[in-house]
Amino acid sequence: MNSISETAIEADPKLPIIQITRDFTATPEQLFRAHTDPELFARWVGPDALATRIVHWDARTGGSWRYVAAQDGTEYGFHGCFHEVRPDRIVQTFTFDGEPDGVALETLSFEDLGDGRTRLRARSLVDSLEGRDAWLRSGMEVGVDQGYAKLDRMLADGAV
Amino acid sequence: MNSISETAIEADPKLPIIQITRDFTATPEQLFRAHTDPELFARWVGPDALATRIVHWDARTGGSWRYVAAQDGTEYGFHGCFHEVRPDRIVQTFTFDGEPDGVALETLSFEDLGDGRTRLRARSLVDSLEGRDAWLRSGMEVGVDQGYAKLDRMLADGAV
Repeated sequence: MNSISETAIEADPKLPIIQITRDFTATPEQLFRAHTDPELFARWVGPDALATRIVHWDARTGGSWRYVAAQDGTEYGFHGCFHEVRPDRIVQTFTFDGEPDGVALETLSFEDLGDGRTRLRARSLVDSLEGRDAWLRSGMEVGVDQGYAKLDRMLADGAV
Repeated sequence: MNSISETAIEADPKLPIIQITRDFTATPEQLFRAHTDPELFARWVGPDALATRIVHWDARTGGSWRYVAAQDGTEYGFHGCFHEVRPDRIVQTFTFDGEPDGVALETLSFEDLGDGRTRLRARSLVDSLEGRDAWLRSGMEVGVDQGYAKLDRMLADGAV
């Protein structure tokens, strides 16, 4: 089987882009729901140690979102707007409150691989190679890996 | 006087970024209004030959926008969401309906130069150098130049 068993996080050699690729035992519709339904999203996103609380969520083209991730009383806020929400593709902006002028443009796509498998591609575009590399050095892969592992378990349990 | 008398449109040498710089005889507050008030915006944006009609406009952090530019019965639609709207900075997404998967992340800033002058910087980030260069070849500078000339006249007339 040619599927990607682990999460691949790749930096473009020349552009300030991070590309994440991850296969799931899920339909495209399930991955779309996992990224747009606020209750489902809050259950899987981010590292195991943080609990996510949705503050605002309007997953429609032209809508916006905000959530807070908390650990031991410390809160980390994130927000953005939904440029486009359609079944095979979500384009949104992303800012961490701790770096308020930093904005990423994120494009998610869901590719049906057949046999109940779907490939998620999540591309983040920022405005400098330095900003991208700082993000790669931040330990973001822990949250990405642990989040997708939680989503795997939710899919296996029939929660999505 | 060190001000920039014409519009400067520059491509970053390595990144898929177009940077527009233009000075106006205006306060930062006036340039902010010209970019956020839909009636004012529709009067100046784009080339002289096109008439702009606002379809939807909510210039707040987390809001969205859509307008149509028309010439001789042909309409060109544009839309996006407002990631952040604050007095010195607007961050928004931008898509031309004719190329629906192309998305630019635009950052506008208004720098007070004193003496009633303000420098506008408009930076557009896209996801490939090819996409950026296609945009530069599209004749976009005509619309940019003519639009800012209209805004100059509105400012001189006290319309903003």
